[in-house]
Amino acid sequence: MKKRILSGLRPTGKVHIGNYFGALSNWVKFQKEYECFFEVADWHVLTTDIEHTDIMQQQIIETVKDWLAVGIDPEKAVVFVQSGVKEHAEFHLLLSMLVSVPRLQRNPTLKEQIRDLGKEEEKISYGHLGYPVLQTADILLYKPEKVPVGEDQLPHLELSRELARRFNTLFGETFPVPEPILSYAPRVPGIDGRKMSKSLNNAIFLSDTEQEVESKIRKAFTDPKKIRLGDPGHPDGCVVFAYHNLVNKEEVPDIRKNCESGKLGCVECKKNCAFEMNEFLNPIRERRKNLSDDFIREILKQGTEKAKEFASNTMREVREKMNLWR
Amino acid sequence: MKKRILSGLRPTGKVHIGNYFGALSNWVKFQKEYECFFEVADWHVLTTDIEHTDIMQQQIIETVKDWLAVGIDPEKAVVFVQSGVKEHAEFHLLLSMLVSVPRLQRNPTLKEQIRDLGKEEEKISYGHLGYPVLQTADILLYKPEKVPVGEDQLPHLELSRELARRFNTLFGETFPVPEPILSYAPRVPGIDGRKMSKSLNNAIFLSDTEQEVESKIRKAFTDPKKIRLGDPGHPDGCVVFAYHNLVNKEEVPDIRKNCESGKLGCVECKKNCAFEMNEFLNPIRERRKNLSDDFIREILKQGTEKAKEFASNTMREVREKMNLWR
Repeated sequence: MKKRILSGLRPTGKVHIGNYFGALSNWVKFQKEYECFFEVADWHVLTTDIEHTDIMQQQIIETVKDWLAVGIDPEKAVVFVQSGVKEHAEFHLLLSMLVSVPRLQRNPTLKEQIRDLGKEEEKISYGHLGYPVLQTADILLYKPEKVPVGEDQLPHLELSRELARRFNTLFGETFPVPEPILSYAPRVPGIDGRKMSKSLNNAIFLSDTEQEVESKIRKAFTDPKKIRLGDPGHPDGCVVFAYHNLVNKEEVPDIRKNCESGKLGCVECKKNCAFEMNEFLNPIRERRKNLSDDFIREILKQGTEKAKEFASNTMREVREKMNLWR
Repeated sequence: MKKRILSGLRPTGKVHIGNYFGALSNWVKFQKEYECFFEVADWHVLTTDIEHTDIMQQQIIETVKDWLAVGIDPEKAVVFVQSGVKEHAEFHLLLSMLVSVPRLQRNPTLKEQIRDLGKEEEKISYGHLGYPVLQTADILLYKPEKVPVGEDQLPHLELSRELARRFNTLFGETFPVPEPILSYAPRVPGIDGRKMSKSLNNAIFLSDTEQEVESKIRKAFTDPKKIRLGDPGHPDGCVVFAYHNLVNKEEVPDIRKNCESGKLGCVECKKNCAFEMNEFLNPIRERRKNLSDDFIREILKQGTEKAKEFASNTMREVREKMNLWR
C-alpha cells in the first residue's frame, strides 16, 4: 500500500515560481509514489491577516488553478479546502490542551515571521501563536507517514511529532509519528535579489503574461560589477543566472563561461532567460486558460468531501479514545 | 418576544448546594422570563484537566440529572452539550485571530485559577490561556442579549463584549453586545469554612443521602469560641448558620437570638440544620431517582440538535460576512 503524505499552502491567489520550484514541483512528483492530501490552508491566512478576507474566495480559486495547471491531478490527489473540514478546528481545540504557552513562544519560525511582518511580539494574536497547533491538527487528522517540509518548517513538524506522541501516551496508540521529507528546494530569488515573495513585489507569477515576464526579467538584479559587454561577470550572485538554473539547465555551463569571460552581455542573457522562462510557462498558461472558476469549485467540493470523510473517521476515533461525549 | 440568555457550567458530575444557590436556582427562575440556552461546558473541563477524560460521559449524565432534578425544564430551556456543537470550535478558531496574547494573559480570573490549581504560570496550556475565547464563542453563537455571570466571571464577559464589537466593526453588524445579569448569589461555605468546592472535599451534594448530609453537618465548622451549651455563640462566622440561611430562613431570627444568648447548643442546632437540609433535598432526590441515564441522553440529544441548528445559522452568517469559503 502507498504511504500517505499531507501538505498544504496558503491561498495567496497567485502562485509564483518560488512556490513552484520550492514545493509544487515536488507535489507533482509525489503523486506517483504516495497517497496525497493537498490542503488549501485558508484558515492559516487569517493568523497573519484578518482584515482582507473579502478577497479570500477568489484567492482560493486562482491558487488552485495554478496548482492544477502545473500538474496536480485531482484524480490522483485529494485537493481540499481546510475551512471546509470543521474537524480541523475541533481537533485544534483538543490539541491546544496538550501544549504549553512557552513551548509555542519558543518557536523560531514564529519569531522570524513576526520580524518579517514588522510586528511587535506582544501584538500577535492568540491564533497566530497557535498556528503550529492548527498545522498539527491539519497533519494528524490524515495520519500521514510523511510530511514534505521546507527547512524553515522543521520546528513545526517537531511540535506535531511531540503532540502525536503525547496523544498516544495519554489515550493509546492512535497517530503515526510523521517523518519529514526534506525535498530539494533551490533558493529562488525575487527579481530584486531578496527572497521571492508576493508581498515584496518581486515575484514572477505562473499567471504572468509573456510581456510581464520579459519586463520583469529585463529589470532583474544582476552582477553590479558588470556594467557593459566585455566586463567579466559573477554568475553566482546573479538573479538571472539563478533563473537559467531553473528553466534553462542545458545552457548553464556555457552561460557561466561566457558571462565570466565577458563575452555574454546582460541584455542578451536576459532576453534568452525571458524566452526560456516563457517556454517553461507557456504550457502552464495553456492549461490554466482551460480551467473555469466553476470547474475549480467542483474539484474543491469533491476533494473537501473526501478529506472530510477521512478526517471525521479520525475524529470519531479521537473522541472514543478520549471518551468524550458522543 | 422574550430576550435570550446563555449560561453554562462544567460537568463536575455532582452538583453541590453552592452550585445550586450560586447559579442553578437562578437558571430555574430565568426559564419563565427568558429564552434559555444552558450549556454543559465539557470542553472547558479539558482546559484544566486533560488526564481524566475517561469519566467525562458519566459526569455529564450525573450533572444534568441534578439540573433537571432542581427544576431545569427541557421543555422550556435548551439543554445541550458544548462538544456536540462543533461550531463552537470553528468560531473559537476565528475569534482567536481577533485577540492578542497579552490581552488574555492580563485576565485576573486566570491568574487566580492558576494560583488555586497550584500551577506555575508558565506551565498552563495554550487552551487554558484561551478559554475566555472559547467562552466568547459559546456565548456569541446564540446571540444572547443577556448573560448571567458571577462577579468573578465579569472580566470574561468584558472580553466577549470587546470581541463582539471588534467583529461588528470589521465585518458588519452581526452580534448584540451581551449585557451581564449579576444575580444574587449568597456565599456558600464548605463544611470546613472555605469556599465550597468538589475538589476541596468540603461540599454537600444534591445527590448526598440523608445520612451523608447528617454526618457532614455534624462535622461542620462552627464558632470555635462556643465550646459547650450556655456559651454565647457568634452566628455570623458559623457554617451551620449560613446553611440555615439557605434552607431554614424562617427560623433564622430565633436561631441567631438563641445562639448568641447561649440557650441553643451546636449539637441541637446542627441536628435541626441537617433535618431542614434534608427537607430541602428530599424532593430533589425524589425527582432525581426517576431520571434514567437513557432519558438524560435523549434530552441532551434533542437539546444539542436545537443548539446546533441555532449555532450553524450563526456560523453561516459569520462565513458570509467574512467572505470565507462556502
